[in-house]
Amino acid sequence: MRCVIYTGAGGNEVVEVVERPDPEPGTDDVLLRVRYAGLNPADLQQRAGRYPAPPGAPADVPGLEVSGVVERCGAGARRFVVGDRVFGLVGGGGLADRVVVHERHVALVPDGLDEREAAAIPEAFLTAHDAIRTRGRLVMGETLLVHGANGGVGSAALQIGVACGARVYGSVRSEAAAQLVRDLGAEPVSDEDFASRVTADVILELVGAPHFPANLEALAPRGRIVVVGVGAGPTTELSLLAMMQKRAELHGTVLRARSIEDKGAVLRAFEREVLPGLAAGRMRALVDSVFAAAEAREAFDRLASPGKAGKVLLDFEG
Amino acid sequence: MRCVIYTGAGGNEVVEVVERPDPEPGTDDVLLRVRYAGLNPADLQQRAGRYPAPPGAPADVPGLEVSGVVERCGAGARRFVVGDRVFGLVGGGGLADRVVVHERHVALVPDGLDEREAAAIPEAFLTAHDAIRTRGRLVMGETLLVHGANGGVGSAALQIGVACGARVYGSVRSEAAAQLVRDLGAEPVSDEDFASRVTADVILELVGAPHFPANLEALAPRGRIVVVGVGAGPTTELSLLAMMQKRAELHGTVLRARSIEDKGAVLRAFEREVLPGLAAGRMRALVDSVFAAAEAREAFDRLASPGKAGKVLLDFEG
Repeated sequence: MRCVIYTGAGGNEVVEVVERPDPEPGTDDVLLRVRYAGLNPADLQQRAGRYPAPPGAPADVPGLEVSGVVERCGAGARRFVVGDRVFGLVGGGGLADRVVVHERHVALVPDGLDEREAAAIPEAFLTAHDAIRTRGRLVMGETLLVHGANGGVGSAALQIGVACGARVYGSVRSEAAAQLVRDLGAEPVSDEDFASRVTADVILELVGAPHFPANLEALAPRGRIVVVGVGAGPTTELSLLAMMQKRAELHGTVLRARSIEDKGAVLRAFEREVLPGLAAGRMRALVDSVFAAAEAREAFDRLASPGKAGKVLLDFEG
Repeated sequence: MRCVIYTGAGGNEVVEVVERPDPEPGTDDVLLRVRYAGLNPADLQQRAGRYPAPPGAPADVPGLEVSGVVERCGAGARRFVVGDRVFGLVGGGGLADRVVVHERHVALVPDGLDEREAAAIPEAFLTAHDAIRTRGRLVMGETLLVHGANGGVGSAALQIGVACGARVYGSVRSEAAAQLVRDLGAEPVSDEDFASRVTADVILELVGAPHFPANLEALAPRGRIVVVGVGAGPTTELSLLAMMQKRAELHGTVLRARSIEDKGAVLRAFEREVLPGLAAGRMRALVDSVFAAAEAREAFDRLASPGKAGKVLLDFEG
């Protein structure tokens, strides 16, 4: 297989594209011929030596989400047949033209969806769906407020919220961001004064502490705040009394470091609730740019730069 | 009816016991002949003018929990017949020998339970059960840690936790408190170093902010902290990042100010899960002292004093 490797910890100087033997699928795995792989901030952290690969994943091949075609099935794998187009999460090793993945951690790519967009979906939509539906329990008629609405997870959350029958707000700091929120069927609200303009049953926090204590003000009685990102600040002052008075819930969650069963359950819930909307074109993943695998360094530079509008992908068949 | 009233806001000088016409049960209400009524800190707050009676409750008659006998049923009330012994929560007006209450807000007193102990149960056991089971979702095999284990809600929580098959710890500051925790089937742990000695799936916080951030240290992955009391401090510094890493939940909750449906649901869950244990004598409510209704002022003094071991009751038939 051809794969991106890190020869050590550092910047792009440790990034190389090399040939390796194909990985062998375990009993419950499928071996995928990867078409596109999505890049994630965690890949940059791994490059810097701050995010070691989990047990079972190749230590020096980054990459957490892929789309591709089933090339071989493990002896116990029953969900797919050779030739099926699938997409999903891998524990690591996704930046390669072959990867093995547990058959329950991928889903069939719907007919109407191309593999390019499919590779931009897993991390963003699984994270968003797990946060607002499984943890936040958002239902029709409720109101969702998304902080960080312009990113991959945020834009997925806006669309999932709209599709589930909620009224959806995304907080924004610019007119361009407001337009993106509108384009996805939601309503923009200023990041400065959202607490006086919105009362939300579920708040998805992708930015961090700066939105507290306003988040508690904006929360409806029995509301749920789900924290998935704290890049702008990890620690906040919190009124336990206000939490009691609103009978509020604050959830912290991350997708990574979950058990095989947990990841499978996340995928099954996604198949049930989100995949139909993606298949019908009612939701879409944003692709910022596509780089050939040989241009992995340029792709990482793009990933690290500001102002992206969607996912940065590597093309392994281009 | 004979009832305790507040003639204004203040201390015991506003407390009087007077005769009034009996209240009339509404369509779905039952009229109870009250045997015992439990006193609560909220009654003292109402005496001080800081806790107005909710709509529908008499403005000047305090009292939130009672045991008694059904004397009349409203035209639409179907759950009980005249003569049934019942106990439960009232929105107000409980310190009287007659009170009307929605039939779905009371439960039948089990045969083996006397009305004296029954009057000490509702607020403590409903609050504890709603917090650790409905919000905290404690199940068998998990570990529960209770802060404030010596109070009414805390001692109820210890027993409910043991009855549901959990390993239960109560944090304590004295050997006397440790002995009470042991007597209720749980394990005492020092309030000073619980975080290094216990890993809990559910933490019931009845004291407040001083137990943070140690509560987050003591929390198991996917653990739930349920805050029901913050007398020792309402505001805390909270690590949102730690919440994410543990995939933790923080719930605030209170029993009061709930809808008719919510209160009914709390009572039904209590009947299903807690009442069998109370009926069989596997759980018990602690009664500190019983005062005749005419001694309401003395009862309030006792309620306000430290070192109580259980509920202060008023006896309306003694």
